[in-house]
Amino acid sequence: MSNSTDELYHVPRPALLVVISGPSGVGKDTMLNRTRERGRQFKFVVTMTSRARRPTEVEGRDYFFVSKEKFEDLIAADEFLEHSVVYGDYKGIPKSQVREAMASGNDVIMRIDVQGAAKIRQIVPNAVTIFLMPDSEDELIRRLVERKTESPEGLQRRIATARDEMKRRYEFDYVVVNHVNHQDEAVDEIIAIIQAEHCRSRRTPVLL
Amino acid sequence: MSNSTDELYHVPRPALLVVISGPSGVGKDTMLNRTRERGRQFKFVVTMTSRARRPTEVEGRDYFFVSKEKFEDLIAADEFLEHSVVYGDYKGIPKSQVREAMASGNDVIMRIDVQGAAKIRQIVPNAVTIFLMPDSEDELIRRLVERKTESPEGLQRRIATARDEMKRRYEFDYVVVNHVNHQDEAVDEIIAIIQAEHCRSRRTPVLL
Repeated sequence: MSNSTDELYHVPRPALLVVISGPSGVGKDTMLNRTRERGRQFKFVVTMTSRARRPTEVEGRDYFFVSKEKFEDLIAADEFLEHSVVYGDYKGIPKSQVREAMASGNDVIMRIDVQGAAKIRQIVPNAVTIFLMPDSEDELIRRLVERKTESPEGLQRRIATARDEMKRRYEFDYVVVNHVNHQDEAVDEIIAIIQAEHCRSRRTPVLL
Repeated sequence: MSNSTDELYHVPRPALLVVISGPSGVGKDTMLNRTRERGRQFKFVVTMTSRARRPTEVEGRDYFFVSKEKFEDLIAADEFLEHSVVYGDYKGIPKSQVREAMASGNDVIMRIDVQGAAKIRQIVPNAVTIFLMPDSEDELIRRLVERKTESPEGLQRRIATARDEMKRRYEFDYVVVNHVNHQDEAVDEIIAIIQAEHCRSRRTPVLL
């Protein structure tokens, strides 16, 4: 191949920053774990939180669990890409996590609540944003009840928030339904979205 | 589920019009046949041409072959979505073909040369457009020579056209490389693009 045509045949494929969001209880964590099990080379950004660890959660996989005091120290040191107070607890994305993940050259997947995703879209406009939604409100309620972590008031609050969040799904690039009896379908769709986004003709590298 | 939340959980998934384009010799036909073999419910739009049928080509699958006179009659009757003269022969997309395909409710795949794709983008702005490109110019030349249908002058003309067409690949939504030793990868990517586009949050129906 001559040098003059080299440029014509160069196809850049920069790593992606993929944001997976959706209402509380939709199954974001399960979806991430299933995506991970497919064995593709993804890096996951782990959120930091000041809330108590649930029995099934693993430190460093589901979240980094820290005290409120520690979290506030890190806020003061400007160590978060974004952070917020969710249901009375801090949640945030440590900048170091994202930088390390992007430096690996692999695609980076970030799980984040809907208000956090809106902030990430502003900071990283070429992030690929996916809104994960349940089949129905009944299904969402069933999942929240199953957790057994919510008081009746907490449950009502989460349902009301989910309704508001569902209205914001068109702010995201993609909407994926987490069908209760076909969860593999949602995993397939997330993986297809990532594969397709790598083929987008006008993709530019993510800069943080 | 209450009626008030029904609307929140409604996810429209209109059928897609997918345009596959790329330089002559890149392997568009092979790619379409392989996509067809994956057994997904696609409808294919068959192009009409006035050029002679090649020995390996099948009437109604690869093209509809008609005489120049017949083609000109159909142009006069406004029966083409778009048509053009390519290397001295007519090629065009019969409107009836596209309407029938879209009416099936399945996704419609259309193979078309680069100048035709530009016209389709104007007529159908929400078509999903994919530019299929070869690994290298050497590979493109190898495929054109293998066809044994080109005179030396014809070959030179196709190479020059391919260079111009390669420069237009960023006009398309997606760029897929047809790697000579990994053709399945390109098929996987085309299918992933279609699956992902069905999840796009702001997709609207194709109107012709």
